[in-house]
Amino acid sequence: MENSKKISPRNKVKLMPKVVVLRWGHRPRRDARLTSHVVLTARALGASGVILSDIKDEKIKESVEKVIKNWGGPLFFEMGKPWKNVIKEWKRKGGIVVHLTAYGENIQTSDVLERIKESGKDILVIVGSQKVPSEFFSEQVSDFNVAIGNQPHSECASLAVFLDRLFGGKELEKEFENAKVRIIPQKRGKKIAKIC
Amino acid sequence: MENSKKISPRNKVKLMPKVVVLRWGHRPRRDARLTSHVVLTARALGASGVILSDIKDEKIKESVEKVIKNWGGPLFFEMGKPWKNVIKEWKRKGGIVVHLTAYGENIQTSDVLERIKESGKDILVIVGSQKVPSEFFSEQVSDFNVAIGNQPHSECASLAVFLDRLFGGKELEKEFENAKVRIIPQKRGKKIAKIC
Repeated sequence: MENSKKISPRNKVKLMPKVVVLRWGHRPRRDARLTSHVVLTARALGASGVILSDIKDEKIKESVEKVIKNWGGPLFFEMGKPWKNVIKEWKRKGGIVVHLTAYGENIQTSDVLERIKESGKDILVIVGSQKVPSEFFSEQVSDFNVAIGNQPHSECASLAVFLDRLFGGKELEKEFENAKVRIIPQKRGKKIAKIC
Repeated sequence: MENSKKISPRNKVKLMPKVVVLRWGHRPRRDARLTSHVVLTARALGASGVILSDIKDEKIKESVEKVIKNWGGPLFFEMGKPWKNVIKEWKRKGGIVVHLTAYGENIQTSDVLERIKESGKDILVIVGSQKVPSEFFSEQVSDFNVAIGNQPHSECASLAVFLDRLFGGKELEKEFENAKVRIIPQKRGKKIAKIC
């Protein structure tokens, strides 16, 4: 009987998996803005953190810190760790790995998202930039290969739709902590509240 | 009685609005890759076309044409037309304008998407790059200002979530015409079919 009690919205949020995004293949010059967009998308759409693997880029780090300082967090950001170590550690802690790729199971036409949700585990989402190593598709790395449609498009777009569907839209209601500014949604114009 | 008959999935697709994306503020050097991602996202997530306003960028055009040649269409791509003319023409033809902005009505916490859908009209989606002119928020331009969450993130991410929610995911099942290649979704690895 205890288990059949209603889950309040607050509890529901707590039951959602923790999601961390692994950005692989970042090239500081070429990918600067796209990687920034990936990090901002991860933050705004409910991920807990982003790991920029295999490389350090102080400019990205600075821009992330600036956003968190103004718009709030929490969001952790790590960089430089080799991707194999990130995967190994994540799996050791009991998490699963989702690789977003146009070649994977279509999130709309397959039951892949249900299977991911049913696992009830925390999720590391791999988002590539350049052509990814073929190992990413193997059982040693990915538990699921997920396509946001089987067409070429954008890692930002894929990450956004994946998170939106995973969290059922609830991520867009999230209030961030220690923000200095907050947008007050308007039908027209801009309204920003400064938080003292 | 005629009206109460079941709508087949095929008919349902036909009842969906036509969506065209207006990319504003493109700076060829700085925004090249982001604008490409916006166009690819528009194509892969069900838009009929993209207008790059106020500027011509042959490189973007070439890359769009290459994608269509290999992966199929249709997708129209226009560039150089002043944004005011695009809006005017769109409205004259009876369409509505949706401006995606972090300052707008939150797609999750408001009923803005329902109101857009209820209009039953074709939609021009404005996606900015730089800071947009304040006119974009006015009744002369936008019928709706929509926020994919009221946090700063990415125009690619915003466009993707907006289209995914507007089309209820059906856009990811779409088959493209005259494609030379097509991905066959796989749990692991890559499989591409060449279409003769």
